[in-house]
Amino acid sequence: MPALSLHPDRLFPVDASTRSLARRLYGEVAKLPIVSPHGHTDPAWFAYDEPFENATELLLKPDHYIFRMLYSQGVPLEAIGIGNPDADPREAWRILASHYHLFHGTPSRLWFDWVLVEVFGIEHRLSAETADLAYDRINEALTQPGFRPRALFDRYGIEVLTTTESPLDGLDQHRVIAESGWSGRVLTAYRPDPVIDPEFEGFHGNLKRLEELTGEDCRTWQGYLSAHRKRRAYFAQHGATSTDHGHPTARTADLSPSEAQALFTQVTTGQATAAEAELFRAQMLTEMAGMSLDDGLVMQIHPGSFRNHNAPLFSRFGRDKGADIPMQTEYVRALQPLLTRYGNERDLTIILFTLDETAYSRELAPLAGHYPALRLGPAWWFHDSPEGMRRYREQVTETAGFYNTVGFNDDTRAFLSIPARHDVARRIDCGFLAQLVAQHRLEEDEAAELAVDLAYNLPKQAYKL
Amino acid sequence: MPALSLHPDRLFPVDASTRSLARRLYGEVAKLPIVSPHGHTDPAWFAYDEPFENATELLLKPDHYIFRMLYSQGVPLEAIGIGNPDADPREAWRILASHYHLFHGTPSRLWFDWVLVEVFGIEHRLSAETADLAYDRINEALTQPGFRPRALFDRYGIEVLTTTESPLDGLDQHRVIAESGWSGRVLTAYRPDPVIDPEFEGFHGNLKRLEELTGEDCRTWQGYLSAHRKRRAYFAQHGATSTDHGHPTARTADLSPSEAQALFTQVTTGQATAAEAELFRAQMLTEMAGMSLDDGLVMQIHPGSFRNHNAPLFSRFGRDKGADIPMQTEYVRALQPLLTRYGNERDLTIILFTLDETAYSRELAPLAGHYPALRLGPAWWFHDSPEGMRRYREQVTETAGFYNTVGFNDDTRAFLSIPARHDVARRIDCGFLAQLVAQHRLEEDEAAELAVDLAYNLPKQAYKL
Amino acid sequence: MPALSLHPDRLFPVDASTRSLARRLYGEVAKLPIVSPHGHTDPAWFAYDEPFENATELLLKPDHYIFRMLYSQGVPLEAIGIGNPDADPREAWRILASHYHLFHGTPSRLWFDWVLVEVFGIEHRLSAETADLAYDRINEALTQPGFRPRALFDRYGIEVLTTTESPLDGLDQHRVIAESGWSGRVLTAYRPDPVIDPEFEGFHGNLKRLEELTGEDCRTWQGYLSAHRKRRAYFAQHGATSTDHGHPTARTADLSPSEAQALFTQVTTGQATAAEAELFRAQMLTEMAGMSLDDGLVMQIHPGSFRNHNAPLFSRFGRDKGADIPMQTEYVRALQPLLTRYGNERDLTIILFTLDETAYSRELAPLAGHYPALRLGPAWWFHDSPEGMRRYREQVTETAGFYNTVGFNDDTRAFLSIPARHDVARRIDCGFLAQLVAQHRLEEDEAAELAVDLAYNLPKQAYKL
Repeated sequence: MPALSLHPDRLFPVDASTRSLARRLYGEVAKLPIVSPHGHTDPAWFAYDEPFENATELLLKPDHYIFRMLYSQGVPLEAIGIGNPDADPREAWRILASHYHLFHGTPSRLWFDWVLVEVFGIEHRLSAETADLAYDRINEALTQPGFRPRALFDRYGIEVLTTTESPLDGLDQHRVIAESGWSGRVLTAYRPDPVIDPEFEGFHGNLKRLEELTGEDCRTWQGYLSAHRKRRAYFAQHGATSTDHGHPTARTADLSPSEAQALFTQVTTGQATAAEAELFRAQMLTEMAGMSLDDGLVMQIHPGSFRNHNAPLFSRFGRDKGADIPMQTEYVRALQPLLTRYGNERDLTIILFTLDETAYSRELAPLAGHYPALRLGPAWWFHDSPEGMRRYREQVTETAGFYNTVGFNDDTRAFLSIPARHDVARRIDCGFLAQLVAQHRLEEDEAAELAVDLAYNLPKQAYKL
Repeated sequence: MPALSLHPDRLFPVDASTRSLARRLYGEVAKLPIVSPHGHTDPAWFAYDEPFENATELLLKPDHYIFRMLYSQGVPLEAIGIGNPDADPREAWRILASHYHLFHGTPSRLWFDWVLVEVFGIEHRLSAETADLAYDRINEALTQPGFRPRALFDRYGIEVLTTTESPLDGLDQHRVIAESGWSGRVLTAYRPDPVIDPEFEGFHGNLKRLEELTGEDCRTWQGYLSAHRKRRAYFAQHGATSTDHGHPTARTADLSPSEAQALFTQVTTGQATAAEAELFRAQMLTEMAGMSLDDGLVMQIHPGSFRNHNAPLFSRFGRDKGADIPMQTEYVRALQPLLTRYGNERDLTIILFTLDETAYSRELAPLAGHYPALRLGPAWWFHDSPEGMRRYREQVTETAGFYNTVGFNDDTRAFLSIPARHDVARRIDCGFLAQLVAQHRLEEDEAAELAVDLAYNLPKQAYKL
Repeated sequence: MPALSLHPDRLFPVDASTRSLARRLYGEVAKLPIVSPHGHTDPAWFAYDEPFENATELLLKPDHYIFRMLYSQGVPLEAIGIGNPDADPREAWRILASHYHLFHGTPSRLWFDWVLVEVFGIEHRLSAETADLAYDRINEALTQPGFRPRALFDRYGIEVLTTTESPLDGLDQHRVIAESGWSGRVLTAYRPDPVIDPEFEGFHGNLKRLEELTGEDCRTWQGYLSAHRKRRAYFAQHGATSTDHGHPTARTADLSPSEAQALFTQVTTGQATAAEAELFRAQMLTEMAGMSLDDGLVMQIHPGSFRNHNAPLFSRFGRDKGADIPMQTEYVRALQPLLTRYGNERDLTIILFTLDETAYSRELAPLAGHYPALRLGPAWWFHDSPEGMRRYREQVTETAGFYNTVGFNDDTRAFLSIPARHDVARRIDCGFLAQLVAQHRLEEDEAAELAVDLAYNLPKQAYKL
């Protein structure tokens, strides 16, 4: 059984002197607290602090990075328990273990190995041969108090963790956390897609529910906007410092009030075409920016994913099954209406993300390197990886600098791997900085300051944490 | 006269310890047999085994990588014998030799030097000064038995070589090869563009010929589909394990039978618009996928080339004169109809190629990292080069892993350089793996296994060879 | 106060033996004269040779690379004197100095530090603390004769410097220079956007002025074309060897004479739609190529910038305020009309630029690697940076080779930093060549020859200097 261990120099540049530099820079940031300003962990974990069930429920079934790869190589989702409550979790784990070579060269492998070694003390590489050994070790650990959500949160050195909720969420779990006396800081973020996107499942019902929650007449444009304002305020009272918008495109609009009202009527009476739905989402980004200027919530825009691309899979298993595929995304024309209205505001922060790396050097860095309201989010989703982060720094920095970026987001549901993800980002950033120093494009003391800013100060400042 | 030699460490990473790793990994694959599952060599060479004519006919005139570069710098094609049977082949060779610096930094230089050194034992760099020396040496060699096609095939360690033929080809040369008693394995692949693309030269005549060959009524949709099935079966009987589709875009469609029939009528009666031609090609990709599910032929899709961009050149010299230019290619929406129908089939293999590298990380790796039916072909055509292959691995691996790729294709007409092309791929892949090991993202034993899979096992498996 | 110095090995590869190679190659080109065939310096500087005013007027206010970054981080443009003649230049300089960390990792930092050290002998890093020290040192130097424009031009070893003028410019300053007896060679280039682009500010007035200057009836298509021919000849008499075209897209057209005439009427009578304006620009590129074939002026096409993206800023401060944003740019279909007409001409040189790096390997290198009339300009504007240049060489060379590129352009208004910019290009090119040698893809003597060609011979040949 081959041994499993994490090399202290992993992910650093290969050149010996550059590696030494990277190691020194990393030494400045390795132990900094984790600031996680955007993600999708379940607040119920921290509200109720119940033990995780087993290795498969914890590490395999919620992780679409993992199961999409198994699926791509012919493993039925049912075999690993998705859409199939009768599946044996141990058998599911064995399937993962016997296919573990599929993850060679992927970030999932890095994160997963970190969890095996650092959290569970596993000493052998995962394989068909070692599957049961690992499975039993993990499950045994999960019965212990030190492996409950709050204990892990504390052990991980998380200073703040942000989850993402719908405006229709009562934030009960966040209230439970706040009132529990536990010192962990778990915030929410306002993600209004279910009541903004006319093509979201249950949109009309969602509007009704929004009306009930706020007492505003959501059949009128003004009432609808007021309802947003009320829910944003409610979220802010529960700790939110940001909103999040997951649109198919980056399109924005700045309609006249009467045009906006007419479009709202069209959209809410259920007659909207695809073009009208798109225009409504576009207009709402500009409305949300205006509200952010008023209430101070940082605005995040996450465009460019073709959700649920695999129609047969979606109809059988539902959302988030590894079938969201990036699309080409245009920003220059798309954002102009919003930026003309609010881009010059120094008190507004809009954080842009992309799944289309071609926009980094061509569109996003030039935009963020000019407009005071814009900042660039880190390499996202498929690009949250060593090579993806390297490309991000190489393509963004020369035009936007470091200070128009906002540090790292883990954006994950996979709670156990959060430190691993931040660690990868810190290592890659330190490697990038070391390269700049080795090429005499930056002094080492400047790099050391930057390393701390990227790992800690920038996310805190950008997200007002 | 400067000496010419091939350095044993060529193309490996420059860092000394990473280079050592690459050298060790390369040692595992350097001598493996060549599996060439997709290319454009002439089966007549292996059927009749006649000597090649001279250096110019063998190495210059058929190689559009070479003559397009000369043309770009002002060399008339006639001067090197293209469209001009009266050109002196020695003079043509001298032109190449005196312009050889144009190829500095290109893969053509790597391949060509390999042929000069490894096949012909030439010891001086090609230049105006050495032109005649090389020309005479090559021509002399070509008169010897060891330089005939079959002898080179054997000496090159080619385990299997696939050519590409039209459905209208009788495969006579493949039959001659099969019946010759020679041990070389030369297969065909089914490339139906001439009878699928309404904009292909001679489309209507090609349909007539298809009708004659199959006895099916190719004026009806059902007869036309049956004709494809018959020709596919005929190709499979002659060794084909794959089909190949060279469309301008990746667009697919899944029309109802009546819509498809109406479109077929429109297209075959010669009234089709460009949009209808495109829709017909789109529908036929889905039909071909369905037939592949039935008959087991692996399906290759090669989209994105604007063929014959230089209209004056095309009208004078015809196809394949170095004027095919890549275009931006969209896959996510384009492939959805086909993938909705067949993408979840575990028994189907569709191998996608691209000339648009921006699709690697954004579209292709996410699609191949999800759909069981999809695999990614290697870096193709203009990107079949050291930097192109490196970008491919860097942009594909983190999302799709290695096992959703299919190893290397040489895709060449330039028979002499086939081992050089596979050697470049093996060296670049070993360098990439060495980099992963040096950064502790992979263990060396895992890299060694991967090196063999990429060089040998994956193409055999993917193409069912 | 941390010391400031320029490391002799800056920008070279980090691997020690590759760095030695780069150092040797750089030794061959470091002292070569500067050939600057495209830029935007003010010819009045060299005509009248007056002292520069102060550090802020010289180094901050004209440099939109610098002030856009300050603006992006909340510095009002008025605070640094833009649109505000009352601003204190010393205070503006202090703002720059205290925000200097924003430029970490950017090329502006490299260029600016070079000017501080090499031109002004400043020994401390720029910061809030050292602001006044540097400000006073620079201003004192500027009073001395050795810091006047012509003295710097000579000290910089500039062999030739090209500015860019409108056809409406009388070229008086270039005449003053020519008649002054000074040995410096300052040429103009013909940039006809103001009289070609119907959407240019003052287009109709510009046509009237063109009519006055040439005596041609610019209300007729033939008169308008003749006016261009006359102004081109006038520019050529004053040393111009090139034209320059800054269109939003790369679109070209080849209309019939009667179509072109009708379009001209439509455009000049002020009724043109956006589509007609675009078509007119497209047609004019082809007309300009035809005139270049006649008069020998090298044609430069610079497409892809969305000018003045920030509408409120534009209405307040005007053009060139750091708000030009690159857009996706298509070349393959766009250029076909022009290339069909003139692309096979060996006596025509068209130099293409891009702000869309995705076109390098996909479109531009294949086009330039085929058409005799095409050459590729260097990495441009946002991509004129160490990483941008590296990507350019990596993505262009394998398909187009080195000899379909034209060396470096600084394209700058920032006269003081011209040697710094050429030095960055030479270092990056030598590093790239060293990498090829270290990987045995090129011999060292070939690399040395290439280094000189890229730094000196290619721009002279391509621009006929």
